[in-house]
Amino acid sequence: MAVTITRRAVVRLQSGAEPASTPDELAVEGPLVLGLRGDRIATLMRTPGQDLELAAGWLVVESGVRAAEDIVTLRSCREDDTDRVHITLADGVREPRPRAFVTSAACGVCSADVLDLTLLAVGPSRSPGFRVDADVLVALPDTMRARQRTFDRTGAVHAAALADASGALGVVREDVGRHNAVDKVIGHALLEGALPARDRLLVVSGRVSFEIVQKAVAARVAGIVAVSAPSSLAVDLAREHDLLLAGMVRNGRVNVYAGADLVAS
Amino acid sequence: MAVTITRRAVVRLQSGAEPASTPDELAVEGPLVLGLRGDRIATLMRTPGQDLELAAGWLVVESGVRAAEDIVTLRSCREDDTDRVHITLADGVREPRPRAFVTSAACGVCSADVLDLTLLAVGPSRSPGFRVDADVLVALPDTMRARQRTFDRTGAVHAAALADASGALGVVREDVGRHNAVDKVIGHALLEGALPARDRLLVVSGRVSFEIVQKAVAARVAGIVAVSAPSSLAVDLAREHDLLLAGMVRNGRVNVYAGADLVAS
Repeated sequence: MAVTITRRAVVRLQSGAEPASTPDELAVEGPLVLGLRGDRIATLMRTPGQDLELAAGWLVVESGVRAAEDIVTLRSCREDDTDRVHITLADGVREPRPRAFVTSAACGVCSADVLDLTLLAVGPSRSPGFRVDADVLVALPDTMRARQRTFDRTGAVHAAALADASGALGVVREDVGRHNAVDKVIGHALLEGALPARDRLLVVSGRVSFEIVQKAVAARVAGIVAVSAPSSLAVDLAREHDLLLAGMVRNGRVNVYAGADLVAS
Repeated sequence: MAVTITRRAVVRLQSGAEPASTPDELAVEGPLVLGLRGDRIATLMRTPGQDLELAAGWLVVESGVRAAEDIVTLRSCREDDTDRVHITLADGVREPRPRAFVTSAACGVCSADVLDLTLLAVGPSRSPGFRVDADVLVALPDTMRARQRTFDRTGAVHAAALADASGALGVVREDVGRHNAVDKVIGHALLEGALPARDRLLVVSGRVSFEIVQKAVAARVAGIVAVSAPSSLAVDLAREHDLLLAGMVRNGRVNVYAGADLVAS
C-alpha cells in the first residue's frame, strides 16, 4: 500500500500563545521514474499511489497511446530506493519524445514542440449530442470536494475526476501535482477501456492552464470544469478543440469560457 | 509593455437567471523561449512581463549562475511570433544541463538528476544571526496579498516576493506558474546584485513543493513562508538545508515545519 500521507513534527505558533510542537500530516511527494527499454525517460514528482495509472495517463499525452492495448506491460517496482514503472509499448505505438528543458506554468507541458498539438489531432472529441445542465456544472466541484480525502488531512493536494452529464463522478484522484491528478484519472480511464471519454467532463480542483486543456484534448473528453479560473491560452485551446470549459464555480454561479452551446441552462 | 491580462467573452450562468455574456479578464499564459548559443534550451509557459528576470532566476536554479556578472547579456526579442530571451553566459559559468522529460508536482524540477542537489551545495545559506518574529511571519501573506494586482483581476495567478526580517517586502511578482513567480523574484534579486539573499524570506502564495525549496536553496534565502501547506519532501529538503519553512498561515496562526529556532516568538 503506497504511503500518501506522512507525519512530521511541526511547531504551531500563535500570537500570545506558547509554541506547541505537534505531529502534522503532510502529503507525500516523491519521485517516480518511468523507464522504457531500459532507459529512464521521465521522472515525475508525485504523491505515491496509482503509479500505474499515472504512468498510463502520462503516456496518453506524451506518446501515441490511445487505448489500453497500446501498452503491453506496466511493471511497478522499487529499485535503488526509487519507485519505478517499466513500460513496454505495443509495436508501432509512437514512443514519448524526449524533451529539452521543460518548465511550464502548470508543469510538464513545455518543450521545443510545446505548442505542437498536431499529435493530439485525433479526430473529434465529444459525442455529438453531449449536453450538460448548468446545475450539474455548478455542483460538480462540491461533489468532488466531498471525496478529496487526502486534501482533508493535508490541505496540500489537488484533485481530478471524470463526471458524466448527470453529475455522477468516477474515481477521484489526488496528488501534490495538479497535472498528476489529471494523468491518474486519464490513466484509470485508459486502463478501464474508457478512452476516448467523449461523454465525460474532466473536473479539476484548481486553475486551468494550457497543459490541463492539452490533457483533456488527449483524453478526448467533452469538457473541463474547474473550481478556479483558466489562463488565456487555456481558453483559446479549448475553443480550438470545441471543448466545454467552465470555471470559477462559486455560490451557485459558473463562468463558461468555451463551448457554452453544450450547456442546457 | 507586456500584456499580462487579456479579455475573452464569457457566459455567466446562475440557477434561475438568464445566461449573461460579458467580457472577462484572464491572466495571459504564453511561451517564452530561452536560447543559448543559438540553441533553444527551454520553453517556459509564463505570464508575460519581467521576462529577463524570469530568465535570470531560471538560470540561478538551472545553471551555475550565482551573481549578475555570471550573465554577459540577456536579450529579449520577438521572432517568428514568439517571445524569446537570448542568453550569453560569462566564460566558465556552468550552462543549464539538458533534461530528459520533465514533469513534476510543481513543475520544472524533475530530470534524471532530479534529486541531485549537489549542484546547489554552495555553502551555508542564511546569515548566522537571522531571526524573525512570529508576528512578522503571520502577517507576510496578507502583506503580499495586498499587492497581488493581477490576482485581484483574474483570480488565476500565483505570487512571490522576498521579505526582510521586519516584514518589509521587495518586488511582488505574479505568474500563472508558481515556480515562474519565484524565478522572477530570484531573477530580480540577481540582477540587483542582491544574491545570495541570506537575510531574506521567500514568500509564496500557494503550497510548497520540493521544487520551491530547491529554488530557495539556490537563492540562499533564510527561509520560506507560504500561505498553504508543504509536501513531505519540501519539509525534508528545508531541514537538510537549515531553512526556515513556515506555512498554513491562517487567522493569526502559523505552522513552522523547519527551522523553528529562527523564529523569535
